[in-house]
Amino acid sequence: MTEQKATNVTWHEGEVTRADRNRLLGQKGATIWFTGLSGSGKSTVAVALEKVLQSQGRLAYRLDGDNVRLGINKNLGFSAEDRAENIRRIGEVAKLFVDAGVIVLSSFVSPYRADRDLVRKLHDDAGIDFIEVYVDVPLAEAEKRDPKGLYKKARAGEIKNFTGISDPYEAPERAELVLPSHQMSLQEEVEALLKLLGARGILPAA
Amino acid sequence: MTEQKATNVTWHEGEVTRADRNRLLGQKGATIWFTGLSGSGKSTVAVALEKVLQSQGRLAYRLDGDNVRLGINKNLGFSAEDRAENIRRIGEVAKLFVDAGVIVLSSFVSPYRADRDLVRKLHDDAGIDFIEVYVDVPLAEAEKRDPKGLYKKARAGEIKNFTGISDPYEAPERAELVLPSHQMSLQEEVEALLKLLGARGILPAA
Repeated sequence: MTEQKATNVTWHEGEVTRADRNRLLGQKGATIWFTGLSGSGKSTVAVALEKVLQSQGRLAYRLDGDNVRLGINKNLGFSAEDRAENIRRIGEVAKLFVDAGVIVLSSFVSPYRADRDLVRKLHDDAGIDFIEVYVDVPLAEAEKRDPKGLYKKARAGEIKNFTGISDPYEAPERAELVLPSHQMSLQEEVEALLKLLGARGILPAA
Repeated sequence: MTEQKATNVTWHEGEVTRADRNRLLGQKGATIWFTGLSGSGKSTVAVALEKVLQSQGRLAYRLDGDNVRLGINKNLGFSAEDRAENIRRIGEVAKLFVDAGVIVLSSFVSPYRADRDLVRKLHDDAGIDFIEVYVDVPLAEAEKRDPKGLYKKARAGEIKNFTGISDPYEAPERAELVLPSHQMSLQEEVEALLKLLGARGILPAA
């Protein structure tokens, strides 16, 4: 075990930093936090942005109910306390991804301002970008779309504490971007996001 | 808001997949799970491997006590239940990183076989690589090193339930790699890891 083998290993001083990883990826990791009513179009625009970023050679990753509620947060329910812990953990996971250099696309209703502000503070304290994107459609519009049939169930009393119906949605007061998805094409939404990411230095200048 | 702007946006069918991200990064995401006594050298080899991967243009990210215990798991203590939940959450976070295409270098004592096997199962069920690396040094060696002075405190009874002293360490029975760090140079350890990652297709053929 003590034989010295030929090697192409390069040794560096110091540990690998966030800046090193950003340089490797040619981007600056950041959290793009989509918030809005169920049915507002958060996931739709996140999916569209992810595709464009991938096609441009950028590494993005979506955090959403599918990969979070079934995994890291599978032991959480929908009480106010569990909702807060749900968002807190997502915020911490997002922060780790940004530290790794990834552009995180997070889409959760995240209805409470205090929870979102806590995630913003986590990022601010670490000196990393948190970009709150409010996907802003009127309740009537979201309810008309009702892609998962959830509003119907909430109106029928089959779902308790449903945001917009029996639970409040606290709109952002200082979102970095507002996307009224009922008045914009998906392409316009993505263009607005790319412009913002460029202006913030998250994407290199075109 | 309805004006059609010129755009360089490329639209793709379908959602971006793990395979797409692996292709973008030129590697296959995987979790390298270092387990062993406190002072065995888990973090030392993880840091060294991370540097070499970065120098080769690979995206790796270390999960350890510094960025996990203070963040996502800050509300967990050291009871048996909390230890299990600690490892479970780390496993879920690692799985998300691998889904994003990242090579995760996880270094935690993780003394219980059942906890590690649960993380392995999480990965197996998702069809992603979990590579258990047992950093195997005799207790006497780890205690002699005692880099954080923890063994001394444990012997003095100032730390309860300390792995190796007053709490068991359950050695892996089917680790993909065993590194007796007291009998190998750091460079030899890294070479052994690189060889394994190459053989598993996690790194492209040299």
